[in-house]
Amino acid sequence: MKILLKIAYNGNNYCGWQVQKNGISVQGELCRAASEMYGCEVAVTGCSRTDAGVHALEYFCTLQPGEGAPVIPTERIPYALNVRLNEDVTVFFAQEVDNSFHARYNVKSKTYEYVIDNGSFRDPFQYGRAWHLKRELDELRMDQAAKAFVGKHDFSAFMASGSSVKDTVRTVREASVRREGRNVVFTVSADGFLYNMVRIMTGTLTDVSYGKFAPEDIDRIIRSQSRNMAGRTAPPEGLYLKRVEY
Amino acid sequence: MKILLKIAYNGNNYCGWQVQKNGISVQGELCRAASEMYGCEVAVTGCSRTDAGVHALEYFCTLQPGEGAPVIPTERIPYALNVRLNEDVTVFFAQEVDNSFHARYNVKSKTYEYVIDNGSFRDPFQYGRAWHLKRELDELRMDQAAKAFVGKHDFSAFMASGSSVKDTVRTVREASVRREGRNVVFTVSADGFLYNMVRIMTGTLTDVSYGKFAPEDIDRIIRSQSRNMAGRTAPPEGLYLKRVEY
Repeated sequence: MKILLKIAYNGNNYCGWQVQKNGISVQGELCRAASEMYGCEVAVTGCSRTDAGVHALEYFCTLQPGEGAPVIPTERIPYALNVRLNEDVTVFFAQEVDNSFHARYNVKSKTYEYVIDNGSFRDPFQYGRAWHLKRELDELRMDQAAKAFVGKHDFSAFMASGSSVKDTVRTVREASVRREGRNVVFTVSADGFLYNMVRIMTGTLTDVSYGKFAPEDIDRIIRSQSRNMAGRTAPPEGLYLKRVEY
Repeated sequence: MKILLKIAYNGNNYCGWQVQKNGISVQGELCRAASEMYGCEVAVTGCSRTDAGVHALEYFCTLQPGEGAPVIPTERIPYALNVRLNEDVTVFFAQEVDNSFHARYNVKSKTYEYVIDNGSFRDPFQYGRAWHLKRELDELRMDQAAKAFVGKHDFSAFMASGSSVKDTVRTVREASVRREGRNVVFTVSADGFLYNMVRIMTGTLTDVSYGKFAPEDIDRIIRSQSRNMAGRTAPPEGLYLKRVEY
């Protein structure tokens, strides 16, 4: 039996989801908290590897305590973990799942949001939570360009160079850009994402807005399958994992 | 001539607006930045003394550079100050005002908001930005109680004990409580506020919600002019100065 957790975290103070040699990771913190709670080693498996500084509004992971771990009533687990975690990570919900359930492989769809603070001067409440671009963005032009992402494509051009994934085909179900007050928000849903895919998509959309590319160029960039053809990589702090579906 | 600035700040990392011996203040940071910009001493006068951890969505202050300071084009001042300030303080606007203008004494009305995170588990994105109360609040009951604040009253009962202000009469123009998703937000406008007044009002409204007081008790508490009759003091992190009118 495994315990599935629904959590959220502000990624500012973390080296990302995954345990790394240098820096504090969200996975590491959950592992520590769960081990304290159970009094034994606990394996923690996440739904996605988020980078340093990236946030999650909704994230799922499983706990698998070692042999002989005590049974803790499932409804008590969020309380027992939250008292052991920092204020920037919260466990909202826990439920039992079958051992065959895998937090990452069973994901059917993920939705990311990328938030750009597009005010003339940076918003002091969005520092570390948005990418500040003071030059006005054209969200309609960006939305038009984003539509070209929709569909089943080889997204190699939107993958960080150096990645070694073999299957670079992903199906994007939704991609749109809207303005919310001073912010411009890019939303994208897909069955999976390549390394840095949303951040390269976002950077490229801002290049479209500022005239470096035409909205029609996105299709050409996808077909090129070449990272060099796409635009810049947006920084991590504006990126939010927003929804995960199994 | 003075320069009037419109700014905003996240108060998390500051000991408050006012310069203090221990800790970094927003006033001190602006003073440093303005002195660097002008190359001479600059007097900085704020519209309000906010406490440690309190935020400002809109705040006004004046700069008065010493004799012989260079003339800096007013429209350049926000840029010149922002590059010298941390990301949690932003200058949005600067304009020249007459020497007779006083950032504090000329204020006609101020509006504060107090944000309560009322989710069962704390929101990791609202840490340091809201007061987390997990037990469900009754925002309608709180709104009914808040209405009793409106009018010209002696608010001694809602002033931190130990304050030495002589005139404790203030006129509250608006006071209301509403729910915004998981948050409960108290808004109050007045010609002025006593020390900790909004935080004691907020704490008392939560006491009303949880049944310690009836909404009708607010009027009785005001008339008592006794701090002991009012409720608890809400913590600083949920408090926002939202609007200042001259």
